[in-house]
Amino acid sequence: MTPDRRVQELFGIELPIIQAPMAGSVLSDMVIAVSEAGGLGSLPCAMLSIEQTRSELLRIRAKTSKPVNVNFFCHRAPQVDRAREREEAWKRRLAGYYAELGIDPTTAVASSGRAAFDGAMCELLEELAPEVVSFHFGLPSDELLARVRRTGAKVLSSATTVDEARWLESNGCDGIVAQGWEAGGHRGMFLTEDIASQVGTMALVPQIVDAVKVPVIAAGGIADARGIVAAFALGASAVQLGTAYLFCPEARISAPYRAALDAAKDDATRLTNVFSGRPARGLANRLVREVGPMSELAPEFPLAGGAVAPLRAKAEQHGSGDFSPLWSGQAARLGRALPAGELTRRLAEETRALLGLAPS
Amino acid sequence: MTPDRRVQELFGIELPIIQAPMAGSVLSDMVIAVSEAGGLGSLPCAMLSIEQTRSELLRIRAKTSKPVNVNFFCHRAPQVDRAREREEAWKRRLAGYYAELGIDPTTAVASSGRAAFDGAMCELLEELAPEVVSFHFGLPSDELLARVRRTGAKVLSSATTVDEARWLESNGCDGIVAQGWEAGGHRGMFLTEDIASQVGTMALVPQIVDAVKVPVIAAGGIADARGIVAAFALGASAVQLGTAYLFCPEARISAPYRAALDAAKDDATRLTNVFSGRPARGLANRLVREVGPMSELAPEFPLAGGAVAPLRAKAEQHGSGDFSPLWSGQAARLGRALPAGELTRRLAEETRALLGLAPS
Repeated sequence: MTPDRRVQELFGIELPIIQAPMAGSVLSDMVIAVSEAGGLGSLPCAMLSIEQTRSELLRIRAKTSKPVNVNFFCHRAPQVDRAREREEAWKRRLAGYYAELGIDPTTAVASSGRAAFDGAMCELLEELAPEVVSFHFGLPSDELLARVRRTGAKVLSSATTVDEARWLESNGCDGIVAQGWEAGGHRGMFLTEDIASQVGTMALVPQIVDAVKVPVIAAGGIADARGIVAAFALGASAVQLGTAYLFCPEARISAPYRAALDAAKDDATRLTNVFSGRPARGLANRLVREVGPMSELAPEFPLAGGAVAPLRAKAEQHGSGDFSPLWSGQAARLGRALPAGELTRRLAEETRALLGLAPS
Repeated sequence: MTPDRRVQELFGIELPIIQAPMAGSVLSDMVIAVSEAGGLGSLPCAMLSIEQTRSELLRIRAKTSKPVNVNFFCHRAPQVDRAREREEAWKRRLAGYYAELGIDPTTAVASSGRAAFDGAMCELLEELAPEVVSFHFGLPSDELLARVRRTGAKVLSSATTVDEARWLESNGCDGIVAQGWEAGGHRGMFLTEDIASQVGTMALVPQIVDAVKVPVIAAGGIADARGIVAAFALGASAVQLGTAYLFCPEARISAPYRAALDAAKDDATRLTNVFSGRPARGLANRLVREVGPMSELAPEFPLAGGAVAPLRAKAEQHGSGDFSPLWSGQAARLGRALPAGELTRRLAEETRALLGLAPS
């Protein structure tokens, strides 16, 4: 019952709690707070430029000597020829909203804002050597991965099925995040595109634990000590919490996003591809309901986000989250508005209490 | 951490383990074995005639004095006018398979084989007074429910969302089965038809526990002691296991069904409506892959099953499960082929061991 210490020993951290890297919502202050509290803070870099990533990492290095995780997307870049046509169709699908919000429909499609891990980011890792590097959507090329490993970083990635977990282990991951159906944000799926195949945390974790030798980190629907203890019972060595940390003051989220999270019910989320082209779980809002949740028109990841960007910006100016990705898992209801460091410490204490262990 | 005894006290049973009622796969022998072992055996009656139900219940009464659960579907009967047209379209969709299997396409559409709880079944309950009566798809009419309650039976039903759990509690349920996304068989959903809203067990159980006062029974993706301990950690007072019991010799399942379960991987199931008209989780086979998993052509529950029945019968004659519902949750991989009584006792012992409790 008592959790093993495999993840703590692997990363050199005190608590088996990882703050999930949530691109667009987390910057260095949350990472520092979580790592200082003894958990593993994670800096999501998929939506940061090289300069921003460097600046955030330098800030982290100045403020804490504790281990941190730096996270990247590692999708393959979309094929531009085919993409152009789909982007036009997508823009036509959204034209009514452009008209309604008074946005010039001839505006050039914005960048999607999500970049894949590349040589330049790898150089930054070689320079600043974060203790843990995690990837989403599989792993980068063998050459890039070898360079990452030579920095001494431990490497993590997410699996949504047992097959993906086995693949990640055989490709050299030091630990695997078992991402259950409940999880918010982008599904890490990379060996399948079929969301109907996706497995709930309760079923996924023990089957991945049985299939691999590396430690397993449970993610999806875990937002309080009950979920953490449950994950340990299933055989996980640690947990990764995302949505729970969105309630922290350090979360960089808009007012409508925060309001939607505060009001979120268990059944309020959907897997949707309308914001990026890949399935991701978020609170259902107008764009999700009217165009999604899954649209065959959405261009390949990450291009779908480009044409949505002006709608989102204009709506948010008016205090509306109708066109914003409101990423959330299915347990938002269990969230509490606490500073990230205090949340980390409290989760650990409450977990110990539920396990019948003495306070640390 | 240690489970409370609310469900044991409510039903007068020894172990907080309920064998799920799985219509078509469970008869009295499994119910007797589970209840004799100290769990709660459940007789599914949705596919039994009155005479069969009486005969099974009398056999149970003769063989055990332990409490048992008797389960019914309580869907509203489909509107016949609209249904006829849809049944014809459905039969046209399946015509190619009729031709391939050499079945006369003018064969009258078979009965779907799934009946809703009615006055005649209620009389049987009044006569034989099972200790627990459970429903799927909400609850029957106020009048029928009042009659059931007057027999002294405790009443259970399944919730797939917090809203459904609150509704069931306010309509008099004594306990609530929290049916997570991972669960096999028909989803009990009755306040929504949107499968995209469905919540994983890890997220659903604590939110239902927080929302209702009656004891909560966790279901979905639980197939071994790890899942049972996890469910307790989430606040459940008991667990309901279905798929795990399909591996028992008492399960009345076909050879191809058993073979498919033995080979099942974590991502092998789909929610499909092709077998009945309502979403239910089963192993993906030919009909699910080619016509489903969700088909807009499938007639209203339970009528879709009628036109599939001859295909299933013919295919099974040739040892094929291509057209059979292969109901399964997402944790079939964790199943073990043990007699139902022994499985129940072992699950209880392994749970005690994992909880660090002395053997009972």
